Amino acid sequence: MEQTALFEKIGGIMHGGDYNPEQWLDRPDILAKDIEMMKKAGVNCVTLGVFAWAVHEPREGEFHFEWLKEIMDNLYENGIYTILATPSGARPAWLDEKYPEAMRVDASGHRAHHGVRHNHCMSSPIFREKIAIMDRKLAENFADHPGMLLWHISNEFGGECYCPHCVKRFQNYLAEKFDHDIDKLNHAWWTTFWSHRFNSFDQIEPPYSNGEFSIMGLNLEWKRFTTWSMTDFMKWEISVLRDVKADVPVTTNFMKLYDGLDYREMAKELDMVSWDSYPAFHNDRETLAETMLENAFDHAVIRSMKPDRPFMLMESVPGAVNWHPFNKVKRPGAHRLACFQAVASGSDTVQYFQWRKGRGSFEQYHGAVVDHLGTDDTRIFKEVEEVGQLLKKIPDVAGTIPKNQVAMIFDWDNRWAIDDAMALAQETKNYEKTCMDIWDEFMKMGVEPDVISSDSDFSPYKVLILPMFYVLHDGVGAKIKDFVAKGGQVLATYFTGYVDKDLLCHLGGFPGDGLSEVFGIISEEIDTLYPTDRNAVRFTNGKVCEVRDYAEMLRVSDAEVLGTYETDYYGKMAAVTKKKYGEGNAYYVACRMAATDMKDLFVEVLSNAGIAGKDLPEGVEYHVRYGAEKSFEFYLNASGKQITLSGVSGKDLIGEKEISGELILDPCAVAVIEK
Amino acid sequence: MEQTALFEKIGGIMHGGDYNPEQWLDRPDILAKDIEMMKKAGVNCVTLGVFAWAVHEPREGEFHFEWLKEIMDNLYENGIYTILATPSGARPAWLDEKYPEAMRVDASGHRAHHGVRHNHCMSSPIFREKIAIMDRKLAENFADHPGMLLWHISNEFGGECYCPHCVKRFQNYLAEKFDHDIDKLNHAWWTTFWSHRFNSFDQIEPPYSNGEFSIMGLNLEWKRFTTWSMTDFMKWEISVLRDVKADVPVTTNFMKLYDGLDYREMAKELDMVSWDSYPAFHNDRETLAETMLENAFDHAVIRSMKPDRPFMLMESVPGAVNWHPFNKVKRPGAHRLACFQAVASGSDTVQYFQWRKGRGSFEQYHGAVVDHLGTDDTRIFKEVEEVGQLLKKIPDVAGTIPKNQVAMIFDWDNRWAIDDAMALAQETKNYEKTCMDIWDEFMKMGVEPDVISSDSDFSPYKVLILPMFYVLHDGVGAKIKDFVAKGGQVLATYFTGYVDKDLLCHLGGFPGDGLSEVFGIISEEIDTLYPTDRNAVRFTNGKVCEVRDYAEMLRVSDAEVLGTYETDYYGKMAAVTKKKYGEGNAYYVACRMAATDMKDLFVEVLSNAGIAGKDLPEGVEYHVRYGAEKSFEFYLNASGKQITLSGVSGKDLIGEKEISGELILDPCAVAVIEK
Amino acid sequence: MEQTALFEKIGGIMHGGDYNPEQWLDRPDILAKDIEMMKKAGVNCVTLGVFAWAVHEPREGEFHFEWLKEIMDNLYENGIYTILATPSGARPAWLDEKYPEAMRVDASGHRAHHGVRHNHCMSSPIFREKIAIMDRKLAENFADHPGMLLWHISNEFGGECYCPHCVKRFQNYLAEKFDHDIDKLNHAWWTTFWSHRFNSFDQIEPPYSNGEFSIMGLNLEWKRFTTWSMTDFMKWEISVLRDVKADVPVTTNFMKLYDGLDYREMAKELDMVSWDSYPAFHNDRETLAETMLENAFDHAVIRSMKPDRPFMLMESVPGAVNWHPFNKVKRPGAHRLACFQAVASGSDTVQYFQWRKGRGSFEQYHGAVVDHLGTDDTRIFKEVEEVGQLLKKIPDVAGTIPKNQVAMIFDWDNRWAIDDAMALAQETKNYEKTCMDIWDEFMKMGVEPDVISSDSDFSPYKVLILPMFYVLHDGVGAKIKDFVAKGGQVLATYFTGYVDKDLLCHLGGFPGDGLSEVFGIISEEIDTLYPTDRNAVRFTNGKVCEVRDYAEMLRVSDAEVLGTYETDYYGKMAAVTKKKYGEGNAYYVACRMAATDMKDLFVEVLSNAGIAGKDLPEGVEYHVRYGAEKSFEFYLNASGKQITLSGVSGKDLIGEKEISGELILDPCAVAVIEK
Repeated sequence: MEQTALFEKIGGIMHGGDYNPEQWLDRPDILAKDIEMMKKAGVNCVTLGVFAWAVHEPREGEFHFEWLKEIMDNLYENGIYTILATPSGARPAWLDEKYPEAMRVDASGHRAHHGVRHNHCMSSPIFREKIAIMDRKLAENFADHPGMLLWHISNEFGGECYCPHCVKRFQNYLAEKFDHDIDKLNHAWWTTFWSHRFNSFDQIEPPYSNGEFSIMGLNLEWKRFTTWSMTDFMKWEISVLRDVKADVPVTTNFMKLYDGLDYREMAKELDMVSWDSYPAFHNDRETLAETMLENAFDHAVIRSMKPDRPFMLMESVPGAVNWHPFNKVKRPGAHRLACFQAVASGSDTVQYFQWRKGRGSFEQYHGAVVDHLGTDDTRIFKEVEEVGQLLKKIPDVAGTIPKNQVAMIFDWDNRWAIDDAMALAQETKNYEKTCMDIWDEFMKMGVEPDVISSDSDFSPYKVLILPMFYVLHDGVGAKIKDFVAKGGQVLATYFTGYVDKDLLCHLGGFPGDGLSEVFGIISEEIDTLYPTDRNAVRFTNGKVCEVRDYAEMLRVSDAEVLGTYETDYYGKMAAVTKKKYGEGNAYYVACRMAATDMKDLFVEVLSNAGIAGKDLPEGVEYHVRYGAEKSFEFYLNASGKQITLSGVSGKDLIGEKEISGELILDPCAVAVIEK
Repeated sequence: MEQTALFEKIGGIMHGGDYNPEQWLDRPDILAKDIEMMKKAGVNCVTLGVFAWAVHEPREGEFHFEWLKEIMDNLYENGIYTILATPSGARPAWLDEKYPEAMRVDASGHRAHHGVRHNHCMSSPIFREKIAIMDRKLAENFADHPGMLLWHISNEFGGECYCPHCVKRFQNYLAEKFDHDIDKLNHAWWTTFWSHRFNSFDQIEPPYSNGEFSIMGLNLEWKRFTTWSMTDFMKWEISVLRDVKADVPVTTNFMKLYDGLDYREMAKELDMVSWDSYPAFHNDRETLAETMLENAFDHAVIRSMKPDRPFMLMESVPGAVNWHPFNKVKRPGAHRLACFQAVASGSDTVQYFQWRKGRGSFEQYHGAVVDHLGTDDTRIFKEVEEVGQLLKKIPDVAGTIPKNQVAMIFDWDNRWAIDDAMALAQETKNYEKTCMDIWDEFMKMGVEPDVISSDSDFSPYKVLILPMFYVLHDGVGAKIKDFVAKGGQVLATYFTGYVDKDLLCHLGGFPGDGLSEVFGIISEEIDTLYPTDRNAVRFTNGKVCEVRDYAEMLRVSDAEVLGTYETDYYGKMAAVTKKKYGEGNAYYVACRMAATDMKDLFVEVLSNAGIAGKDLPEGVEYHVRYGAEKSFEFYLNASGKQITLSGVSGKDLIGEKEISGELILDPCAVAVIEK
Repeated sequence: MEQTALFEKIGGIMHGGDYNPEQWLDRPDILAKDIEMMKKAGVNCVTLGVFAWAVHEPREGEFHFEWLKEIMDNLYENGIYTILATPSGARPAWLDEKYPEAMRVDASGHRAHHGVRHNHCMSSPIFREKIAIMDRKLAENFADHPGMLLWHISNEFGGECYCPHCVKRFQNYLAEKFDHDIDKLNHAWWTTFWSHRFNSFDQIEPPYSNGEFSIMGLNLEWKRFTTWSMTDFMKWEISVLRDVKADVPVTTNFMKLYDGLDYREMAKELDMVSWDSYPAFHNDRETLAETMLENAFDHAVIRSMKPDRPFMLMESVPGAVNWHPFNKVKRPGAHRLACFQAVASGSDTVQYFQWRKGRGSFEQYHGAVVDHLGTDDTRIFKEVEEVGQLLKKIPDVAGTIPKNQVAMIFDWDNRWAIDDAMALAQETKNYEKTCMDIWDEFMKMGVEPDVISSDSDFSPYKVLILPMFYVLHDGVGAKIKDFVAKGGQVLATYFTGYVDKDLLCHLGGFPGDGLSEVFGIISEEIDTLYPTDRNAVRFTNGKVCEVRDYAEMLRVSDAEVLGTYETDYYGKMAAVTKKKYGEGNAYYVACRMAATDMKDLFVEVLSNAGIAGKDLPEGVEYHVRYGAEKSFEFYLNASGKQITLSGVSGKDLIGEKEISGELILDPCAVAVIEK
């Protein structure tokens, strides 16, 4: 197994974050102090130039890069590398004033006014022309700088545009997709319903807020198009940079599970994936360990987009963020825990937004390493400094990756389709939560699942989990059949296999596309329960588990019934089934149960697959990364109390001692066991 | 008494529903199976052509009716009649593309984009021209078809349009209404308030969301105009059809108590009324019997629009709908109960939306007789099949009608005016609920009230109930006075008789227009209670009942005080009064009590009127239909348990046996007793 | 001390209100009855002409004032004076029809339609031209009328306009403010953040709803500009009136603590301030005494705008209002209490909206002295009549004013900035409530604080309270330092001194601008608690008080620690401090506690300042007004029960007897003790 760190020059884990010296050019004292404090905090890389267009080009055609050159030089001389951003995240006022068509049009058809950020039209030719000039100049000036590590394309891409340009591109996109055959589209979108047939692609409009919203296929394609269009814009920026110097890698920073863009499509164009993590630590609805697990799920989703290499934690905050409903301060130790969770999950970097708090505007109170107070003796600074020191202890982790045997399928268009489906109850669909709860349950058994696309290669895995796997892409039914036939374990739930990629219902029984044969059942009806309604499943072993929200009535053709409903008119009907198919097994859970109540099923599935779990105390997270010669086990104690683990052996790089058997972890402590 | 069934050709109760074969023209196997399955389910009529414009006329001026002809022929040959819809419910894309003025403008002044449905401008000349061509061709091709039963005009009319065309028509409508005298309008709308006087009708605009909303008279006339304009459009469609062949009857399908249109005005233009019923069965806030009663109220409102003939249940669903907040499956038997409730309430039809689920788009999961699974052995199909068989047992019911002696006044413009009134508390006005609760209380005593307009003929009735009868149309005060004087019983509540038809307050004491003389009281103040506030009424018999939300302080001139308030500064003041006026009695209930607490009053009123109630077990509904020679009593058991009724005699057409005294009904069972 | 009544001609307290005879010109019988009933109710002044433009000038250039002349004459002959309004609160339809640019544009960029009220563009030249013609004619016709007392400029100014005219004026306003130096603005608004630098003032737009909302400085200046622009319009009206006759005084009626306009700026242009008071009496969330105290706070804010003279209660309602969520009737006696609270707080008037209820439109149910019933024997009329009689007992109170030694700083732009700050938790910021709760606590000790601006003169005061004093205007840090140094007592809370007037954070520690030296502390972090989170403060005397919402972590340099946190990672850290600075003391309360829990601190502060409190029974309010020779103590019993007060001496003008020691007050009773 090969091991390639994302950044060889860094010589270990990157520690740094966004740095906006352009806000302080009139304060050379502060800029000098920044370098000094960065060194104290163990910062080895900063991100420059995010949102710097108005400084780079204050008037059209007038460019200023000297300041940036000087700062990059200075940083480099002090051992600090640079990630350089393209500034397309926000446009200078002169650009919007002269070229208003660069501004986005919203779903109501109104063109935005200048302001805020992330609101350009992805299709605007003039905007592409202007950003190309800018990016080319940046590349010409800085691509060869010795401190230059990586291009950071734009910032947190998001949103959508309904301008005439984008409408036309949408129509072309559809024509391309449906082979220029409008009847193909009419059939796929079932437009004969409500007299919605189109005679030509030119007649199709996006789902304006006062327009068409009732064609599910159109709604879905609009979302796919927005991803395509945003990706196309990003590719344009990348091509300009590569045209100048091809070998500087590129990334862009994703936002958690942002619903608006299928990040997996964008990831294909990047050299590495990165994301910005802002959990609501210490909130009023869950424990710290639960908050951590949610974040670990996000890490897993991002990581699985480039499974062969580490990813980057591009942004996080050492203190409080400023845009949550409640901006609670991160308690001592929580920062250490979060930073090591990123590394444990496969990140080669720990980065912050931002280095120093600005004095004004929207994010003046967003947490930063350096406060308005400006000193290096604040609690926050000292916690960052400590993380900087600890990361220096684990240089060999860089470049290692996890190797997981269980995968959960989580598709962006499945999210969109479930969300848009006129069925069930809008209030309780909870697709993402359903996935996360099941994922957490595996984590608690010490088994970390990857979170993959249905288009991914299934061959590295022994177990596939399919929660609410509503949309079946072409060929996926056959892929699953093949996976099970060859010995794989599959577990699917209610609301699986109802529609094809265009959201047309399968005829002849759900789950469709051959899956009812694999599972040996057909779902005849799906009942939606009110929040106060309850049913239950009685398993053959006598165990009874509560059912909420959804329950399907199954016709069982040739499956084993593992559990039946307790009450209502479908009492005694099958609720959980298992079918041996080929060399493998196919489990079907026809109703919503708590993930904890599904644990026995998961244990059985893992056991079938020969995967050993781990006996973890509550609140302790466990991850493993594998390298060319060594592997690293990570233990994170989010339980809030001291924990003693047994059966651990190897060298704890954090505690700097050999462990053989017993590992004691204080609250918020972490251990990295080298093997 | 004459007895005329709505559809002689059907020879009994119609059973059928919406059928959209145009979605399956590429699947002749499915079309063939449909006929076969319809016959199995006892379907004798289907509704064709709803939303079929894009299939009828795929390009402007290019018409295709062969497919429809073939299907109508085929259905007819198999004993299945057709209700044919005009397709104005949604426009084809080519029409909106070429004639955007056919699309509606919303209250913010924005023209809609193409899409969805029910969004045409009612005034658009080009839209009228295009639909006239279409309707004429439909009539020419199908009016004489032997299977043709009825025209179904458009579909679920609704909404409103603020386009320049409609604004102009609104101004003309007002000029007409106020005799082209702007000062008449100024006085009626009290426009001197806030300097709102108009100099000409041209200055008046509809209540745009960013315009005038503070003239109550204008708001009300805009709603009246919208009804007028929608009716005018409907009349246009009807006139085109009648021009080709005058004797095919017409209807359109109403939506429950839809607030946007005064259905009573529209009903005048129709040969029979029909509506679409979608109760939220088995919800989390009430019992099945309560849900049923709400639906029975809706039946009563619709029925009372054409009291001399049966109505139609045009749409209902055998399974789950797909657009409720929670789309729960209809439990076994509930379908039977709902279908027989329609017939019991006066419907000659039981129809569904729809026959077969489409594969895609907005209603792909709306319940249907035939599921995506496509077989005739599903639970739902079998329940429909059973209803089909049972309906065949009661052919003589067709054409019979109820004859009720109690009426509740429920005016559309009273709803609008109460809703818009800047008084009381928006949150607790609950006009409709107040009416329904009182109506239910009568039903529980086995006495079904009609639900009529204040413009209706009062002479068939002995009792009039006036809940929150806020608006008095011209002459209604005198009509009520006359009704009581001649021996009628009237019971009114708080918030009665405050304003005239233009919403000007009566001077000299509420209730105005002579009613304070009839009731012998004047309401000096009305108190609005917070939801946690309580008062109570102590009746002369010592009974004490809780008061919530509203309480009027009465000046009693010459009425008997039946109850007084218990607390607050109006403790001891009159809360419930009775006055003998002429040969009748006038009761006034000055505060909001639970309808159940008003039962004693209702009993007294019925007793005064010589109307005998019935001792019904909880959860059992009772209706009667009268024919030329026979009458039919309906018993519906929505109690959830087996019920034994006594005092029943006659032939139970469902159970097919003579009943003399005791009738046993299983849960969800129905009995139809012929007398 | 000089004593000048606002209106010498009135000879005591004014009693009256809005009167709209123009709605009844066709009913001379009603107009005659009005005069007769006014006299019975002790009305000595009415407000005419509010919203009368369409009657004054029914068509452009056609003026009618005869009716008004006749009514003013008639009133005057009956001893009733007139306050005359300019009618700019709403425009006639002909004006908007011909000059649509007079109508406002909203934040989404849409021009309003004609209608409603208070929706003119403050910058529109044509609107200014038209209102100038009108105002000049009113002045020419009525300024010399013997019954004329005061100009009432427009009505309840409010709202904002985003039209091109206003945008241009905003840009000019900014250019003026920032010395035509765009870089000055760029620095003040920290525009380098997110690439928001402007190259010229022309590029700046207001915060459109689909535009820039992320520059805090811009948001704040937009609000300041709106106040400036509205004031400029008001000054225009005043200048026209003064041009005709300079010595008629002017006012306009404010709306409570209306957030949209900094009333203190407007007040500078007025001869006296007046406001409209509509508390939600008898609501479900607080006692009557609490509702009264909230209203007293509003009186204090308004009064402090012109501390050297009385103010006016321009509008209030004797019964129920019609636009509250719940329009509950005012209970007997509450009206008396409210009227005397106004006078006790420093008002020389008790006025109502309105005299007689109109028959139609938006406010037909708004409480009035005369109901639709039209008689003088209603409960409401009789309560008004009683107040009229009681006010006649205290003529000498007119012109007296309070003299308070405690002041709370409450700045409009502090409200705006806190509200807009991206920090803390939107849901729990509660700036106004925090101020009111503290103010109430002083009131309960018999000490009424003024509520002043940070730009006010601090010299009349011994104690300054600074709750959440986030924004420091230029020089205010020094002013406070000076105040304390010279012996003043200051008490500030968390979230104080974070930013300067442009909302740039102070560097080097909060509170900035020298205040950390005064308090001897620096706030290093501020924690935002979830609503269910709790901490506590343990005071040195052992008392423990609950902490919610916010808690700062202090670095104490040279202050005495009065209390420390109990739990969490900042347990044992300082929560409340005190520093002797110069001759005075500076207290800092770093966290949110209930105002009742801060009482000990307040007692200490008052004691330091030598201010004696009063031992008041719960629910009794106490105010004092001082005149040239006499002072008047007001006792208001809002406790709901009979109260016996001790230590009272002087003549009770209401009870008309000498009190020496014991004063007994019935529920809702008031006493005015002359000394």
